[in-house]
Amino acid sequence: MIYITRRERFNAAHRLFIPEFSDEKNLQIFGKCSNPNWHGHNYELFVMVKGEVDKKTGFLVNLKALSKIIKHEIIDKTDHKNINIEVDFMKGIMASTENLAIGIWHQLEKPIRELGVELYGIKVYESENNFVEYFGTGR
Amino acid sequence: MIYITRRERFNAAHRLFIPEFSDEKNLQIFGKCSNPNWHGHNYELFVMVKGEVDKKTGFLVNLKALSKIIKHEIIDKTDHKNINIEVDFMKGIMASTENLAIGIWHQLEKPIRELGVELYGIKVYESENNFVEYFGTGR
Amino acid sequence: MIYITRRERFNAAHRLFIPEFSDEKNLQIFGKCSNPNWHGHNYELFVMVKGEVDKKTGFLVNLKALSKIIKHEIIDKTDHKNINIEVDFMKGIMASTENLAIGIWHQLEKPIRELGVELYGIKVYESENNFVEYFGTGR
Amino acid sequence: MIYITRRERFNAAHRLFIPEFSDEKNLQIFGKCSNPNWHGHNYELFVMVKGEVDKKTGFLVNLKALSKIIKHEIIDKTDHKNINIEVDFMKGIMASTENLAIGIWHQLEKPIRELGVELYGIKVYESENNFVEYFGTGR
Amino acid sequence: MIYITRRERFNAAHRLFIPEFSDEKNLQIFGKCSNPNWHGHNYELFVMVKGEVDKKTGFLVNLKALSKIIKHEIIDKTDHKNINIEVDFMKGIMASTENLAIGIWHQLEKPIRELGVELYGIKVYESENNFVEYFGTGR
Amino acid sequence: MIYITRRERFNAAHRLFIPEFSDEKNLQIFGKCSNPNWHGHNYELFVMVKGEVDKKTGFLVNLKALSKIIKHEIIDKTDHKNINIEVDFMKGIMASTENLAIGIWHQLEKPIRELGVELYGIKVYESENNFVEYFGTGR
Repeated sequence: MIYITRRERFNAAHRLFIPEFSDEKNLQIFGKCSNPNWHGHNYELFVMVKGEVDKKTGFLVNLKALSKIIKHEIIDKTDHKNINIEVDFMKGIMASTENLAIGIWHQLEKPIRELGVELYGIKVYESENNFVEYFGTGR
Repeated sequence: MIYITRRERFNAAHRLFIPEFSDEKNLQIFGKCSNPNWHGHNYELFVMVKGEVDKKTGFLVNLKALSKIIKHEIIDKTDHKNINIEVDFMKGIMASTENLAIGIWHQLEKPIRELGVELYGIKVYESENNFVEYFGTGR
Repeated sequence: MIYITRRERFNAAHRLFIPEFSDEKNLQIFGKCSNPNWHGHNYELFVMVKGEVDKKTGFLVNLKALSKIIKHEIIDKTDHKNINIEVDFMKGIMASTENLAIGIWHQLEKPIRELGVELYGIKVYESENNFVEYFGTGR
Repeated sequence: MIYITRRERFNAAHRLFIPEFSDEKNLQIFGKCSNPNWHGHNYELFVMVKGEVDKKTGFLVNLKALSKIIKHEIIDKTDHKNINIEVDFMKGIMASTENLAIGIWHQLEKPIRELGVELYGIKVYESENNFVEYFGTGR
Repeated sequence: MIYITRRERFNAAHRLFIPEFSDEKNLQIFGKCSNPNWHGHNYELFVMVKGEVDKKTGFLVNLKALSKIIKHEIIDKTDHKNINIEVDFMKGIMASTENLAIGIWHQLEKPIRELGVELYGIKVYESENNFVEYFGTGR
Repeated sequence: MIYITRRERFNAAHRLFIPEFSDEKNLQIFGKCSNPNWHGHNYELFVMVKGEVDKKTGFLVNLKALSKIIKHEIIDKTDHKNINIEVDFMKGIMASTENLAIGIWHQLEKPIRELGVELYGIKVYESENNFVEYFGTGR
């Protein structure tokens, strides 16, 4: 069993808030992350896959194919977008980094399996000081 | 003459667009940076000052005092904010990284001179691949 | 189950030595890390916690609260300090990075549980080339 | 149980290709990584070991001794070398990062055990966007 | 006057040697960098341009256009290539990082001027510990 | 004219204080940097040299020779040392990063000239947020 990780990046706006609460109450709970005029981040995404090395090619997976899937399923939908308003797989879900990591997992799990490898983990950096990891039911 | 640089960071939303143009025309000119729903960045700001070392303290400048000025004049106004809507020193100015660097220079020049040192340069990273530098009339 | 990691930093002096041995013998065992006049590092600390995402807030844990605990329990006690002399939770313990990671774990385990999440791991960088990880009885 | 990771680096040339295939066919499979005139990388290697902390020294392992083993077994053999032609433990093996990580594992497993600790994992960065991890039969 | 820097990357093989010297003599002069079987690097390239900000767009230069020029003139010619054998603008020139920086400058100077801005400097990282800067007749 | 920069690193203890002042007064002026029990840093040193490229070798300077000088003149004297007590070229000088950069300049200027190139600048990082640059009478 071997693990490969591919890094991709996207820049997006978001806001943390509970729609049925007032702006004041949201500011109490989420602080400046709840600014109604939005703020944003350079997100760094690490997609970890696992499987067996192919004897012939020496590859676990063709990284170009993996990168293409991540671009199609995630980066095209999130880069230079507003996560709360424009990202289909985050519709109706609080735009926290935790939920973003889980949403990305569910978005990638199937197409990565169709590549012949297994999704192992998702890691999302919101800033140099904070990151979230999600491993589905694994680890 | 010695130079000290202090790094600070802020996360903000912005959009590139010319208000008198349609969204379509703005998208033609600015691409995805013109998304009407905003996007955002983790900006890294480097403030470079210069002057002579104080014989007694061995300091060019007290870095805590310098950091306090940057926080008060820039970070408090930009962090978790929308640059187009909420940043007073960017009002009516295209929210490009170029203009942001120039705006930050004008915001900091005077208070840094009052600290007894001279502002030498402003460097703003928008992403790991792009940064802007501004040196006023110097360099 | 989701994992969040928070990075904090502290700068400290330390020395590796066994008190009942002579300086010469300590230098034999620990090399230059045993310099009786101390040396120091910019330590980077990564605190990994795990738990379930709160449906309402989309959060595993409030990162401000987590950061506050780390600052109170670790950074205030270690930053700009001498680890051998001044850090209460390292009293009588060899000031190696291994022991530092274990000491930080025991310091943080309870207050982090009181936040409603579980401490998963501690990672301490002593330099860009060396780091230590401790997971308690887990992993 | 505690984990220590040591980072070392090597710069090497390599080429991905299946010898019994033509250059054209190899280019179809491996793209520009199959350039017959070679290309190269700054590889970053992370060697993770685990074990118990020695009560007397506070060490899991003497990092100088660990670094010496890595230099002798890996860096001296790979740095400023051609992986396909000159690296003994990669002879007859496709020079992919996957196989490199596995080869390094087998090269280091025994000498690290003789140091009194256990090899836990090998991590090899080929670029800032791609890395491979191998944990033997563990994890 | 404002400065923008764009980072691009390429992975390449090279060898330092004087063709009329024997391999032994080249090894004496250049050490392991003269390995006849080649070695390679992940090169990081920073292209610095300068000029005046356009009042209308807030831009010094369209970064997509700048990036396109760098890709066409440099990256397409160097990435996954052998610098000694395959890079047209390095033909007959010692493949040192110094000469690479100068070669890249001459390659980019004219097309960047045609974009309406001026090339200010070229910075090439060969490794995390070494980089070369070239400013033409400027600075 | 071309510029090459070499990075080296050292870990050291230091303390900011004016000997004729009490600990209390020093704490007022220098804050926690004045801790009488010392603290420390992982310093990063960048040595920038300039000159003309040698037509024959394609080199500005042999980087091994440059690195050897920096190790002999600076790293051997500072690494795992106490800057206030043990570093000869800092004797009687406030151990600020400003003075450290100036001291390193004077230490390196002559031996680098004897290599046939000119010292252009010294850059010292004390932490990821602060660095000092010194260019002698140049720039």
